[in-house]
Amino acid sequence: MIKVSIIGATGYVGCELVHGFAAHPEFELVHLTSRTFAGQKFSDIYPVFRGVCDIVLSDDDVEAAAADSDLVITALPHGVSSAKVPAILAKGCKVIDHSGDFRYKNVETYEKSYKLDHPAPELLEEAVYGLPEFYRDELATARLVANPGCYPTCSLIALAPFLAQGLIDTDSIIIDAVSGVSGAGRKADLAYSFCETDEAFKPYGVVGHRHTTEIEEKCSFIAGKDIKLTFTPHLAPFKRGMLATIYVKPSECYKDVTTASLYEIYNEYYKGETFVRVLPEGTLPDVKAVNGSNYIDVGAAYDPETGMIKLFSAQDNLGKGAALQAIQAANCMFGLPEDTGLKNVIRGV
Amino acid sequence: MIKVSIIGATGYVGCELVHGFAAHPEFELVHLTSRTFAGQKFSDIYPVFRGVCDIVLSDDDVEAAAADSDLVITALPHGVSSAKVPAILAKGCKVIDHSGDFRYKNVETYEKSYKLDHPAPELLEEAVYGLPEFYRDELATARLVANPGCYPTCSLIALAPFLAQGLIDTDSIIIDAVSGVSGAGRKADLAYSFCETDEAFKPYGVVGHRHTTEIEEKCSFIAGKDIKLTFTPHLAPFKRGMLATIYVKPSECYKDVTTASLYEIYNEYYKGETFVRVLPEGTLPDVKAVNGSNYIDVGAAYDPETGMIKLFSAQDNLGKGAALQAIQAANCMFGLPEDTGLKNVIRGV
Amino acid sequence: MIKVSIIGATGYVGCELVHGFAAHPEFELVHLTSRTFAGQKFSDIYPVFRGVCDIVLSDDDVEAAAADSDLVITALPHGVSSAKVPAILAKGCKVIDHSGDFRYKNVETYEKSYKLDHPAPELLEEAVYGLPEFYRDELATARLVANPGCYPTCSLIALAPFLAQGLIDTDSIIIDAVSGVSGAGRKADLAYSFCETDEAFKPYGVVGHRHTTEIEEKCSFIAGKDIKLTFTPHLAPFKRGMLATIYVKPSECYKDVTTASLYEIYNEYYKGETFVRVLPEGTLPDVKAVNGSNYIDVGAAYDPETGMIKLFSAQDNLGKGAALQAIQAANCMFGLPEDTGLKNVIRGV
Amino acid sequence: MIKVSIIGATGYVGCELVHGFAAHPEFELVHLTSRTFAGQKFSDIYPVFRGVCDIVLSDDDVEAAAADSDLVITALPHGVSSAKVPAILAKGCKVIDHSGDFRYKNVETYEKSYKLDHPAPELLEEAVYGLPEFYRDELATARLVANPGCYPTCSLIALAPFLAQGLIDTDSIIIDAVSGVSGAGRKADLAYSFCETDEAFKPYGVVGHRHTTEIEEKCSFIAGKDIKLTFTPHLAPFKRGMLATIYVKPSECYKDVTTASLYEIYNEYYKGETFVRVLPEGTLPDVKAVNGSNYIDVGAAYDPETGMIKLFSAQDNLGKGAALQAIQAANCMFGLPEDTGLKNVIRGV
Repeated sequence: MIKVSIIGATGYVGCELVHGFAAHPEFELVHLTSRTFAGQKFSDIYPVFRGVCDIVLSDDDVEAAAADSDLVITALPHGVSSAKVPAILAKGCKVIDHSGDFRYKNVETYEKSYKLDHPAPELLEEAVYGLPEFYRDELATARLVANPGCYPTCSLIALAPFLAQGLIDTDSIIIDAVSGVSGAGRKADLAYSFCETDEAFKPYGVVGHRHTTEIEEKCSFIAGKDIKLTFTPHLAPFKRGMLATIYVKPSECYKDVTTASLYEIYNEYYKGETFVRVLPEGTLPDVKAVNGSNYIDVGAAYDPETGMIKLFSAQDNLGKGAALQAIQAANCMFGLPEDTGLKNVIRGV
Repeated sequence: MIKVSIIGATGYVGCELVHGFAAHPEFELVHLTSRTFAGQKFSDIYPVFRGVCDIVLSDDDVEAAAADSDLVITALPHGVSSAKVPAILAKGCKVIDHSGDFRYKNVETYEKSYKLDHPAPELLEEAVYGLPEFYRDELATARLVANPGCYPTCSLIALAPFLAQGLIDTDSIIIDAVSGVSGAGRKADLAYSFCETDEAFKPYGVVGHRHTTEIEEKCSFIAGKDIKLTFTPHLAPFKRGMLATIYVKPSECYKDVTTASLYEIYNEYYKGETFVRVLPEGTLPDVKAVNGSNYIDVGAAYDPETGMIKLFSAQDNLGKGAALQAIQAANCMFGLPEDTGLKNVIRGV
Repeated sequence: MIKVSIIGATGYVGCELVHGFAAHPEFELVHLTSRTFAGQKFSDIYPVFRGVCDIVLSDDDVEAAAADSDLVITALPHGVSSAKVPAILAKGCKVIDHSGDFRYKNVETYEKSYKLDHPAPELLEEAVYGLPEFYRDELATARLVANPGCYPTCSLIALAPFLAQGLIDTDSIIIDAVSGVSGAGRKADLAYSFCETDEAFKPYGVVGHRHTTEIEEKCSFIAGKDIKLTFTPHLAPFKRGMLATIYVKPSECYKDVTTASLYEIYNEYYKGETFVRVLPEGTLPDVKAVNGSNYIDVGAAYDPETGMIKLFSAQDNLGKGAALQAIQAANCMFGLPEDTGLKNVIRGV
Repeated sequence: MIKVSIIGATGYVGCELVHGFAAHPEFELVHLTSRTFAGQKFSDIYPVFRGVCDIVLSDDDVEAAAADSDLVITALPHGVSSAKVPAILAKGCKVIDHSGDFRYKNVETYEKSYKLDHPAPELLEEAVYGLPEFYRDELATARLVANPGCYPTCSLIALAPFLAQGLIDTDSIIIDAVSGVSGAGRKADLAYSFCETDEAFKPYGVVGHRHTTEIEEKCSFIAGKDIKLTFTPHLAPFKRGMLATIYVKPSECYKDVTTASLYEIYNEYYKGETFVRVLPEGTLPDVKAVNGSNYIDVGAAYDPETGMIKLFSAQDNLGKGAALQAIQAANCMFGLPEDTGLKNVIRGV
């Protein structure tokens, strides 16, 4: 069994990682750390895990975790992660980091977006962006993987086929996206209380949300040119899930655009991908259909009245948008079939 | 007291009309009709009304209702309404119609959008579009009022100041909107069952939704030129509420656009309007804050990185988006202060 | 207009009081206080009130509020209330207190239940328990009113007719009750966050919940003998509402018990009561049907197989269970018709 | 691989069976039948299964399913099941039936409870009640298993230790229980629509609910004497989950009852049981903690003030309450470790 430890295991991403690895046939959980809950069992914090994962949470001893593990996953706030990762790598351990700290190649963009000096900029070059659909070869040999942001994952999966083939105008991309409440993390905050969240729906971070620059940098790599785009996140009253509705215009070279051709492009591009499900033409993504899973569903429509292409993607923000994608990446890093322990992870009702 | 009857009183819009008129100081409910539930009390269908409105539902006798009323409100499906309205008008009764049948000036647009021959096209010229903020003078003398669609109301309120003053590019308007489940009406339909709707979020009607042409026609009137635009509705897991996120580009003549100027324009345009609440700069609309009310909240942001303006509006789809807006229009039609019976209709928690 | 001020106006009970009084034809809100949010407008805390109640929150100056008001309503934690109330009364102002501090006649029971020394026990004799259905005569002349607890209100309304007439065995009363999340108050607490509360349902305070002794004392007064009973509260994933399912056995003198007779007893006992709605036989209460209102619905069933009587009551925990009941009591205290400003306060959908 | 087919696969129980067997290491799904959706893929009905289970639904050909399978699971309405089961058994196939048809030993009780003549009463003697914790030995050799009702499962697990040891008064058992909406099945029914169910909570079937007699018969077997008890189900606004709050009095021989002793009794009785989780003293069950799983959590409290024992159990109504319990039983029937494919089936967030 491959030994894996999780630093910051009691947040929602940490919980989903424990959930995924507890049922994984090839990984074994070793250390789970939590500064707040050290000394308690993981199942004291998440009682659903009673009998499934009763590991005692250790304090924030990253080096001990690294010493005993083949893989350490850091689920910590940005700025905190980057300060700890070098020590873990120094132990010869592989790392998947959930913060934004290692997602950028351009350190200035990171520092401007996160308003922080990067403590370990020398690692940015090496860090692999953990989107297996695009970077699985690099993941196979990676020491350090930056798990993508949730909004970037669903934006990039939806946009990539069109960007890569120059089929869309790169000056007018608009990403309108919606996240479930778990995206805000596990914390005591009135804004995310039941009475304030139920029957509510609102935009937030409408100018300068950090994920904007992450999406832009990765889109630019795929398209081979600098891209600026518009991104607006919203908070919706469901626990898990994320939907992106993306507005783009066909480029000059994509004159024969039809809804059918959009699906053909998706089907061709994602042929053989287990976790990207191109829906049948006319079927559109619903966050319900990806709940609890590593699947991301895509669909599209072309409106001949306005010449607008609409792309849609739905994922679970904690699944493909965070923890399960990290397990998919971990499978790549350790030479396992990419769907090991993930294929049947869904929720029926 | 002004006598008002409701045709099709047991749908959610009908219920909200009864709710509003039951507490209104100047209107008195006379007839409530329902083909399905005739003979039962309104409060048998909606038990919350026990002791508040126990009127016995009458069968679909539109003429009796018209004979006894000063105002008849039709809350019927499109196509059905337009066949009944002429008889009501013939009785000398005023009408507010909730269907799409009298919302268009251009009968071809209606017929193409609704895939129906219009049975009373001669009334389209006379019918007043029941958005009091724009048409209150016409409402004062109207016989027939077409209550606006929910999506059109929130789109038009958000766009009008900019369209009217030529401040935005009219070729690239994108309206991304979200509705609560009550927008689908009161019916036995698996798609809207609790287990299928909770934790779900999805787009629907993404090409050719009927409200698109309604929004386009009214925007064209305001702007003084033909407008085609992009509209995408989504279904979200809350009962009531609607949010529009609108993407527009400043026109040539609006070079000095800033977020502050967007709020100034809103404040100037909606000065004195009770029900359009321009939020303080930096505050964005939330459907929670308009729940159960006739208020519509607007906010905006300008993103200098992309030159994109984002406009936001939130309303209750059954409130300002349907029944309470009809009461606001009724106040106009009968010479009452426009906020009579509406100002304090909100939900605190 | 009668002047009313609210001490502790920004909790959910305070909010509901503001909501009720803002629309009340005979009361005028004067001071709203909040230690946490002093200096902000009430509508900054609850944006839905923008344009409806924009009163600036004052710091905790109880005496100023008392000096300017005919009625002061304290919505403060127990222990805090009782320390402030004497000063308000000393100004010649009437008081309705929402805490448990003045609900008991027996100070020992209070002190044992709340684990506090009572700072003003001399007021307990004078304080009137604010359940208008039982104490309206006393309310008419009261200086100090203790607003009943939410669980006690729905328990007492359901039990009173049977206790008063000796129809049930007083040794085996079981009250199984469920509250919405707003009952926990407005606060940043992980336990009441959306992700922890949605899809959850659990008992709490299953032994020794404070409301047990409040229910017992009032039941004892009604029955004319000491009563001990069993009470179990549960937390359910809805914002507002409370349902009690009560199990009792008929006493010796109630040999001819049938479901029909249970409804007859309710109908007779609550004849003329506006806010207690005895449902038609066979219809059972649902929290949905009292949402947002001061109504409390009751129903019952007798099971001949086991000889068990089941009583059911549903109310809004913030409505009849707290703020709207206080307004009903205030109407009594100031000689207004008891349903003033309350009759039409319901939510349709 | 053991071949299993599901008759009536598109209801919520069927879906959960497919979910469980799709990930099970020892079973292979062969036929899924549906009269309504025959010809479509299972994943057309439940899009979350796209790529996970794309079996084409066959029409209601029970015999074909039986011919190709080692085990057939019938998830059909009562009355319908019992008419089909004999033919399946005749093919030499084992059967687990989800209806009430084979749950009773006493055919009169069944016929009175279900108001039906039983078409195959000769099978009642043979049928094993599929609660592995109590009947695993019988399951090992069973041809026909009656999957227990959801309310009976959580009632029996909570009560059994006390009934079996004569520790409680059997004349005054009260079971107050709450179910999520999925318990009503997958159907187009206004009563279970989102707008009617959200923010609602109500009792139903309060006299004579069918599960009463099922609970009574099984309790009687465990206690060794005839038991009549009180049962009240409620509908709550969550998709999945069930909680029972049970009120019992200690019997004469259980004089030293304390809360601690209740937990000791549970711990002793359920020692070694994987799926019955006796919580630590002071911790009470929450439906959230069993969501999506085959676990059932139990807790208890003794109230010395009233001498009342409160027992609590929480399960997922579709998990331990239906489909996953059937898989647990299937493991028993085919000689597999009882937790095969079930131990890690939980939902973290």
